[in-house]
Amino acid sequence: MVSSLWVTEKHKNTSLSFKVKNILFKERSKYQLVEIFETYDWGKVLMLDGLMMVTEKDEFFYHETIVHVPLSIQPKAKKVLVIGGGDGGTVRELVKYPTVEKIDLVEIDEMVVEASKKFLPSISSNLDNERVSIKFEDAAEFIKKVKPEEYDLIIADSSDPEGFAACLIETEFYEDIKKALSEDGLFIAQSGSPITQKDELRTTWKNLNSVFSYCKVAWSLTPTYPGSWWSFVIAGKKDINNLQHSIHTPPGCRFWKPELLPALLSFPSSIEKVLN
Amino acid sequence: MVSSLWVTEKHKNTSLSFKVKNILFKERSKYQLVEIFETYDWGKVLMLDGLMMVTEKDEFFYHETIVHVPLSIQPKAKKVLVIGGGDGGTVRELVKYPTVEKIDLVEIDEMVVEASKKFLPSISSNLDNERVSIKFEDAAEFIKKVKPEEYDLIIADSSDPEGFAACLIETEFYEDIKKALSEDGLFIAQSGSPITQKDELRTTWKNLNSVFSYCKVAWSLTPTYPGSWWSFVIAGKKDINNLQHSIHTPPGCRFWKPELLPALLSFPSSIEKVLN
Repeated sequence: MVSSLWVTEKHKNTSLSFKVKNILFKERSKYQLVEIFETYDWGKVLMLDGLMMVTEKDEFFYHETIVHVPLSIQPKAKKVLVIGGGDGGTVRELVKYPTVEKIDLVEIDEMVVEASKKFLPSISSNLDNERVSIKFEDAAEFIKKVKPEEYDLIIADSSDPEGFAACLIETEFYEDIKKALSEDGLFIAQSGSPITQKDELRTTWKNLNSVFSYCKVAWSLTPTYPGSWWSFVIAGKKDINNLQHSIHTPPGCRFWKPELLPALLSFPSSIEKVLN
Repeated sequence: MVSSLWVTEKHKNTSLSFKVKNILFKERSKYQLVEIFETYDWGKVLMLDGLMMVTEKDEFFYHETIVHVPLSIQPKAKKVLVIGGGDGGTVRELVKYPTVEKIDLVEIDEMVVEASKKFLPSISSNLDNERVSIKFEDAAEFIKKVKPEEYDLIIADSSDPEGFAACLIETEFYEDIKKALSEDGLFIAQSGSPITQKDELRTTWKNLNSVFSYCKVAWSLTPTYPGSWWSFVIAGKKDINNLQHSIHTPPGCRFWKPELLPALLSFPSSIEKVLN
């Protein structure tokens, strides 16, 4: 007998549905509903409060972009902080760099890490790497306690800025990020779809620019996210354009190549229009 | 009273739905069901036999890629043939080049052109340009009558290769295309999603390589197509890598910039894996 179970990410005017083979995990944590489904087309899918976080078939676009773009711009980064990212995809890409010595991951929800470790090994397998320390804390609290200039790269791999994640695009948070960054350090954050989440991208950009002298937008794609076209904001204390870019290709990438960097930083006019 | 009408593109294991404001057009032609909806999130949407062809909000990715990639590789093209493309998006991008002297569009279904002219002016408005001639014919028949070396660029902007469009990825069709191309000429065709339509891409690539000495794959995105990540095949009689690329940016592009070319031709390992 074939299952007729479907899972739907439903927004106000658009919805995306996948046929489901099995429900692997479904539990409510202190923060959110955590679900993992096995689907026919997209492999295993992690959903938080009904929103798709990762699917096995397309997570590589997002994770390769959020790691290899900043590490191409700033290849000397040694100490990295990941905010959110409990599924482990960002950490998997970071450990490909022998030059990265220390990765701190601050994830508010322990259940996301535990469920990912159990059911999504292709994404989470490096969470146990010896260079990785996981802290189950609110990132907005954690960042206040960090030593000045502690990190060379800070990656905000968080949910959309609603509920407990809303503070992660506020000016106060960006001020704390700036203090925690080394002189040559970089900050990168996912900032939603330039097609379906224009307000989120605009607010993020405005607040970031009020704190950092040098900001940029990168684009990439994630087919199963709403709008599919995805944006990332990048900020630094020094002029990012003057840094020496790396032409090294990390192993095992499915999308990333160094020749993508100028394209992903090309600032298409439809993104420019959202920001101005 | 708010409408609760939704339109769904339903595949076997994945479906995408948009909330609909109005049904603007719905008629069965000799070839297919032609529908145009006004949606809340994606503007007006053209569907053929239940599959999304263009939405006003994201068609620019597809049309800018299928035109500006080959015209960056081969900026000298004067005579262009468009196969399919009855919505006019490809023609809109082509007429941006004053160097393009003649555009023949061969569309099997007159109803697609007429409905697009009436309801999708932002896409179709250049179908009346003086450089454009429209022929309502089967492209596989048309191409057999073309003079040898007539066109400098042939663009297959067709539906997926099913039903009346199935012959458009066959070796015989590619042989006819090759005869119709000038010595420096280029052919580009949309070849489906490398994520959800791997078989289509693989067959297209195999057949094309059996006819042309020089073939390449380009990627781009179209959020509302299944899989969102999209592929295009490019072929020529001469080595494409030796052509002098253009660094000219055509006016009014929402996605395209010349610095995208190396990225879109970068042949990511997940596409390489599909082809081998």
